[in-house]
Amino acid sequence: MVPYLILSVAALLVNIPMGYIRENCPQFSLRWLFWIHAPIPLIIYMRVTLGTSKWFIPVGIFLAVVGQVIGGRWRGKTRSSEEVERLKQIPAIDAPDQKKLDESQTTVVLLNMGGPRTNADVPDFQKRLFADPLLIRFPLSFLFQGFFAWLLVTFRAKAARERYQLIGGGSPIFESTGRQARALQEELARRGRKIDVVFSFNYSAPFPEETISAVQRSGKRDVLLLSLYPHYSKATTGSNIYYLKKAAKQIYPEVQFTEAPAYYLHDGYIQAFVDRIQEQLKPGESLDDFYLIFSPHSLPLYSLVEGDPYAFQISQTVAKILTRLGRTTRWGIAYQSAVGPLQWLKPSLEDMLEAVTRRGYKKLLIVPVAFVTDHIETLCEVDIEYRQLAGKLGVADYRMSRAIECHPEFIRALADTVEAALAPRAPEVHRSAQFVHEHIV
Amino acid sequence: MVPYLILSVAALLVNIPMGYIRENCPQFSLRWLFWIHAPIPLIIYMRVTLGTSKWFIPVGIFLAVVGQVIGGRWRGKTRSSEEVERLKQIPAIDAPDQKKLDESQTTVVLLNMGGPRTNADVPDFQKRLFADPLLIRFPLSFLFQGFFAWLLVTFRAKAARERYQLIGGGSPIFESTGRQARALQEELARRGRKIDVVFSFNYSAPFPEETISAVQRSGKRDVLLLSLYPHYSKATTGSNIYYLKKAAKQIYPEVQFTEAPAYYLHDGYIQAFVDRIQEQLKPGESLDDFYLIFSPHSLPLYSLVEGDPYAFQISQTVAKILTRLGRTTRWGIAYQSAVGPLQWLKPSLEDMLEAVTRRGYKKLLIVPVAFVTDHIETLCEVDIEYRQLAGKLGVADYRMSRAIECHPEFIRALADTVEAALAPRAPEVHRSAQFVHEHIV
Repeated sequence: MVPYLILSVAALLVNIPMGYIRENCPQFSLRWLFWIHAPIPLIIYMRVTLGTSKWFIPVGIFLAVVGQVIGGRWRGKTRSSEEVERLKQIPAIDAPDQKKLDESQTTVVLLNMGGPRTNADVPDFQKRLFADPLLIRFPLSFLFQGFFAWLLVTFRAKAARERYQLIGGGSPIFESTGRQARALQEELARRGRKIDVVFSFNYSAPFPEETISAVQRSGKRDVLLLSLYPHYSKATTGSNIYYLKKAAKQIYPEVQFTEAPAYYLHDGYIQAFVDRIQEQLKPGESLDDFYLIFSPHSLPLYSLVEGDPYAFQISQTVAKILTRLGRTTRWGIAYQSAVGPLQWLKPSLEDMLEAVTRRGYKKLLIVPVAFVTDHIETLCEVDIEYRQLAGKLGVADYRMSRAIECHPEFIRALADTVEAALAPRAPEVHRSAQFVHEHIV
Repeated sequence: MVPYLILSVAALLVNIPMGYIRENCPQFSLRWLFWIHAPIPLIIYMRVTLGTSKWFIPVGIFLAVVGQVIGGRWRGKTRSSEEVERLKQIPAIDAPDQKKLDESQTTVVLLNMGGPRTNADVPDFQKRLFADPLLIRFPLSFLFQGFFAWLLVTFRAKAARERYQLIGGGSPIFESTGRQARALQEELARRGRKIDVVFSFNYSAPFPEETISAVQRSGKRDVLLLSLYPHYSKATTGSNIYYLKKAAKQIYPEVQFTEAPAYYLHDGYIQAFVDRIQEQLKPGESLDDFYLIFSPHSLPLYSLVEGDPYAFQISQTVAKILTRLGRTTRWGIAYQSAVGPLQWLKPSLEDMLEAVTRRGYKKLLIVPVAFVTDHIETLCEVDIEYRQLAGKLGVADYRMSRAIECHPEFIRALADTVEAALAPRAPEVHRSAQFVHEHIV
């Protein structure tokens, strides 16, 4: 009798937390199936060890299902409507009359991942980067994230330092982002907006805690979050926002966060790319002679399955650049920087280079489309490493357009985006509203 | 000795075909992992039955790996470079100087799935539809596709007939597509192009075999394939082309197929949607009062993971419509018609309606964005069934824009697309090339 009682209680109790976790996975997804089946080996082991009859199996299954249902309902009750919508992959829907921000209470915070300022900072930067489960998720990451991060940093530190050495030691991102923040603040000032623009990094200084402390010292109440990843991903903008909110909870819980509207289709942002592409041409050359490859950073495929709009938004930006260029053929999107055994967004830049050269194209122009400042991924990976590969494949002319950095059209796009979130100023209500209406998207 | 020999040979031989199949799946994908592990239960069963020692397990694993490698290499050798690129998800790359078609040798074939002309045709149409593994893949479809199709048709025939009854009995698609073919032929004639335009369906007449026979009778050599699914998917355009080529192999192997360029970003195609949206407004009404939901047909998520660009292209079309409308907020994409236990593209139209009404929006305009003619999915699903749901949710004003059908701007887009594949006519080379250059994409 006792073994049957133990087995029954175990089948029921073990499945309650599993049902709780499962309820937060998309129905019939791999993770959903995993959490349903996870307790089976344990229950089988117990059944064999306790020596219960196989006729008891249906009862065990019934109790397991009951446990799953209890766990799921428990989660369902504690779940907010935001969580329910996230599971259904409903994107953020603008509230009917979203509150516009008061300029005098607002700090604009530009978001980026950051980078090591000198080569000595490389291991510390990478440790923080890989330890973030929002950025990259290892198998059973809730247990082993730290271990995998340590492994990666240990085995890749030397190679990483060498790569940063190739681009002059460290990353230029701190200085570049600082220049962008100043340019945006000046553009807003030109429009009569006195507003502080700062920047905040995720894995190097200024860290989220420093940013929040600075806002607290300034006494302002509203933070307008403006990502320097124009295409939304949980791994980039999502992670930035998560850690800022976490820091605010500790340091300055009174602060209010507002996310700026998206600008990945803004005319100014698109025009900045068009100009950077055309800057690569020498006098007398035609862009028609080049095959264009748009090269965004890759993401693991699970992000797409979980509803991340990154890849969709990239393709929209590319379509708009092509329309502006009047280009319909001889272009492609290829993703860079995939690592490890997971499935990533395809095609890879490497495979694309092979495919394009196999067709006999000898002149290529690579456009690192998801970056607004130059990174290790552009300066080293595309401009040095893939250039070598292209040379081996017989490419005669290989060019990369530079990052848009402080292009005036890009700064205009950022300023329009900020203004779209601010309350219109009384004397110019109509002009300003019209301006933003015309230029965003 | 004999049991060990049997087990060894089995472990080796069973894995060769598995390795052959695996080699055609993306590395580390679920299917890839499946074909590696598929023989394990058989081998375990044999080991237990034959009573071999557990110390022989590593030898068995070694032989299984060898079998997988042999199978994989065998496939690798028989694989074309096109297959290799398909696995790497390299999109079709334009050859450097693609041969332009000779007008006098060309028939334009408009592609669509078709539909039952009368209610009596419903079961036959559905049987063909569900039996196509390119359209919908059931679990272990290589064995059970027919069985699942029979199940679905048997249990859904009555409901399906009732739904077709609601839209007047049968589908209007035969007549609608015929009108589009005639309008395109007339537009091409106006441009001085004497060229036959016909249409071909996949699951109702005219079937691929009839289309190919008609082309053979006309004695023409080139078929220009122009899909009425503007956004490419293996499930729609891909399946259409597959069955046409299959029929040609039997009936008229001399025929050459050329795929027309994509037109999902063509200005005329976009403008047709903009006009259909604005046609829904009565005098004095403003589009600003409506929440816009773009509603394409859903696809199972595995299609996205396998590199299907459908969802990306949809989002590009929507972005271009929004730019034209000057709209930046109060819009969303929501997929309709998902069925069964697989994961499909999200959010669903149903979930989106709930989310939007929860925010207090009472006026909705649904744009069935992936359809060019009205279907059961638009006329019945969106206009009748989801209208009822919206009513229950408290929507006061629910509208659906009509399909673009024979909108002159859409026909212009199709004509431009056809001309882009045809050799320019001598006297007007520059004008024609310029025209197409400006208008495609």
